[in-house]
Order: sequence, then structure tokens, then C-alpha cells
Amino acid sequence: MAELTVAFQGEPGAYSELAALGYFKEPVATQPCETFDDVFEVVDREKSTYGIVPIENSLAGSIHRNYDLMLRYNLHIVGEYHLRISHCLLALPGVRLEDVRRVHSHPQALAQCEGNLTRLGLERVAEADTAGSARLLLEWNDRQAAALASHRAAEVYHLDILAVNMEDNPENFTRFLVLACQPYQASDPEDGDYKTSTVFSLKNVPGSLFKAMSVFALRDIDLTKIESRPIAGQPWEYLFYIDFAGHADSRNCRRALDHLGELAIFFRLLGSYPRHRWE
Amino acid sequence: MAELTVAFQGEPGAYSELAALGYFKEPVATQPCETFDDVFEVVDREKSTYGIVPIENSLAGSIHRNYDLMLRYNLHIVGEYHLRISHCLLALPGVRLEDVRRVHSHPQALAQCEGNLTRLGLERVAEADTAGSARLLLEWNDRQAAALASHRAAEVYHLDILAVNMEDNPENFTRFLVLACQPYQASDPEDGDYKTSTVFSLKNVPGSLFKAMSVFALRDIDLTKIESRPIAGQPWEYLFYIDFAGHADSRNCRRALDHLGELAIFFRLLGSYPRHRWE
Repeated sequence: MAELTVAFQGEPGAYSELAALGYFKEPVATQPCETFDDVFEVVDREKSTYGIVPIENSLAGSIHRNYDLMLRYNLHIVGEYHLRISHCLLALPGVRLEDVRRVHSHPQALAQCEGNLTRLGLERVAEADTAGSARLLLEWNDRQAAALASHRAAEVYHLDILAVNMEDNPENFTRFLVLACQPYQASDPEDGDYKTSTVFSLKNVPGSLFKAMSVFALRDIDLTKIESRPIAGQPWEYLFYIDFAGHADSRNCRRALDHLGELAIFFRLLGSYPRHRWE
Repeated sequence: MAELTVAFQGEPGAYSELAALGYFKEPVATQPCETFDDVFEVVDREKSTYGIVPIENSLAGSIHRNYDLMLRYNLHIVGEYHLRISHCLLALPGVRLEDVRRVHSHPQALAQCEGNLTRLGLERVAEADTAGSARLLLEWNDRQAAALASHRAAEVYHLDILAVNMEDNPENFTRFLVLACQPYQASDPEDGDYKTSTVFSLKNVPGSLFKAMSVFALRDIDLTKIESRPIAGQPWEYLFYIDFAGHADSRNCRRALDHLGELAIFFRLLGSYPRHRWE
């Protein structure tokens, strides 16, 4: 392929597309996919250079579905991006705020803007996604309706932005992962601000998680994420998601991961990639 | 109040109401609330004996919003309940599956049933929630539409169940917490299958999480959940959610929590309560 393409879940103007455009400094062609499965599939079949998927949100938590897909496909995390989710109120060109009666969006976006929508006295209408709501305004040519979506959706569908920062809580960030068929090539794994993501399970014996964490602590490796995920129906069995500072190919991290291999009954290195600071 | 009341978020027939009825063996009056905030509010003001809120889902992850509300209100976790989320296809009495053209539900439920809906060739229509979709069928008297919702919603709105287990992945469980103004009264904290939930933050120094975990490991206390939650804008600062086996008033756990108090810069005991096994 001559051009870099980035697959994302959603319609043009989705927050995932905004993250793709924010992550890649160079121009990229974004490729909308209906489902997260489709994103993994097109990258895996090399029909897209990269994929980008949300993995955790500061209000809603980790998106386990995408961890499941990481395990099902053999892709590598090659980057991360933190996007502040800021909902705009969009309407057809020329529509004024006082003309608007209803606001369309995904129920989660509607809930995140509840206080502001109540103050404005707007009726809420649930739709399948945020960018799709913006597209529907255009299709319906509805001048009494608005949509909650990204500022990118305003560009894509040529809508006016009636208000920005509609969310009640500004601490709304989503962390996205950038996926590719090949691992990220670090010029020097020993030098640089890298992060590594792993998933593993442990023998069901007392203190096993503590031992697993000691492989990092004893080598002064900082953890940036830890999460246990119960395996349904098996009350004492868990998957663990651990991200740590450093590149898996650095000497210190390599030894820690070898040590972890002695304890884990299952282990997957999801990728080492440059760290992206929360904005 | 003469009768036990349990507040939940959603409309009658919501999965949270099903969890409330499953948790309480005795008859209870359920009290629908529009938002999670309202659930906490009515319990805090003693307008409801208990509240029940989802805290984590096996596919979607932890619901941080409800952890935030746990911190804002001074309520206690007095119980937990694991509910298998099983979506039924509901329609007006007498409607046959072959008459159905469209299916209404929350976008998450529609996504969880994607494979089955595609096989049936049904158009998806997003609504604000699952039980609300069932109610709308009745209001519209629409005999070409179905809703994805709980079997409880079929009872509440007198609808027929055309199909059960519509979800593509059967491993879909939600853990609910039962909240009250007063802590759970254990007859003997030393004896019984209890769980304790905590939230804390640590000094931002290397190895601090490892030290925090050692207070449990050194006392052979099993962790049942661990999760780090980044604090937006502060790349090395986290809230930690830890649940462990045992009652906070038992001697061993009390010592562990005293020890944790030496390390934490913030600590909240959310409650000790009888463990409920995943079904």
C-alpha cells in the first residue's frame, strides 16, 4: 500500500477516528469498520496498515472486549494515545440553540452530558453512536434536532457547533491502542520512554500475584496499570493485565519477563511502544 | 419503613431490578431511579433501605462511575450479587418471530447479540435502555418490533418471550453491590466467607504498590480484585481498588489494614459483606 491506512470502529467523525488523526503526525487515510472484530480482522489481513481501538476510559473503565480480541488475534500494540472526550452540540447550518428541541446521541454520551442537557431543557433521543447521530441530522434535514458528537463529526457532516464541552465531568479521557502486524521497532530498547503491555494468568495458589509482582518490584520496574479480571464461573481464577515502564527487549525487563514465565500458566506479550502522556 | 425497599437505576424490568430480586430472599419493594446518583441519594436520605448498583461486568469492565459515587457518599457495601446477563427477545402477545422486522434495545445489548440478530435478519434500533425498549413496544402497540431485555421485563410489560439467550457470548456476568447506610453486622467476623472492598492511593514512590500488596500477602490474605485507575492529568498517580477475602473486623485483616494505613495517603473502607459466588 502506498498510503498509511488506519482502521477504526465507528462512522466517520467517531472519537476513534479523532484519536487516529491525533496519533499519526503524517497524513493517514482512516478506514471505518462496523465492529471491533472488523478492525482486528482488516489489520490481520493486511488490508489496513494500522488499527486503533479504545482500551480504557477514565469514567467507564477497561474495555475487556478489546483485550479478548488482542488474545484472539496475533497483532502487536505499537503505540498508545490519550484523547480527552469532549462532546460538542452539533446542528444543521444556521440552526440556533433556541430552535433545538431534541438531542440525539449514544446513551453514554447523553448520560455524560445530563446536567447540561437538563439545564437547556432538551429532550434526549438514543442512537447507536455519536457520529452516526450527526449523520442522521443531515439525512433527516431536521432543524429542531441536535447531536452530541466530536468536533470532527461537525467537519465531516458540515454541521455547526452550537456548544463545546457539553460533558458534566471534564475528566473524561479514553486511552487508545494502535495495532499492527509487526512489533514496534525501537532504535534502542535500553534508552527511551517505553511502555510494555502484558496479559497472564497464574497458578491458583496463595500469594501467586504477590510473587508475580515481585519480578517487577525487585528490578525497580514501575507498573503503570494492573487489573485482575475474574474468569466467569471460576471464582479464584483471573486474567491479569499489567503494563509497565520499559521495553521488553531491554535487559532488565527481559529478565523480569523470564522470571514471570516461571510463575505464569499463561502469558502474552502484547507489545512495547513509546509512552504517550495524558494530555 | 415497614417494608424493605431497594433502589436501582433504570426502569421496571431492568437487569438491576432482577439482581435486587435475586439477592433478597424475602419479598422487597423495588424503587426505580433515573440515575445512579439518585440511587445513592435515596439510600443516603433513608428514603430506601438499600440500593443496588452494577460495579463490574465480565465483558465491559469496571464501572468507575459507581466507585466515584461510593467515594462521594458515605454508604456501606453490605452485599454483592453476580447476575448472568441473558437477553430475551420480547414482543407483544401473539406476535411470531417471523413477523418481527426491527429490534429495539440499548446499543450495548444490540452489540452483544449482533451475531444472532444478523442471522435473523433483524434491523437494530438504539434506545436508552433495555427495559425501556420493552415498555415502548407496549406504548406503540408495534407488532413488527421486538425488544432485547430481561425475562423480568416480559413479566412487567406482559410481553411474550420469542427467544432466550440471544447474546453471542454466554460469559456475560455483572457484579452488583448492595448499599446501605449502616455496615453489615457479622455475627462473628472471624468465622464466615466474607469479602472486604477498599479504595486507596499511595505515595508516588517506586515499589509503593508492591509494599501495599505485601500487607495482605504477608498475612496470607487472598485478593479477589485489584485494579489501578489512573488519575487523569497526573500520569503517575492512581486510585487502587482492592477486594480481599475476610472481614475487616477480623484480627488478621484489621492488622493488614492498619499496616496499609502506614503506606496510603488516602484510604476508604467500602464495606465487609458475605461473599456471593459467581453462578
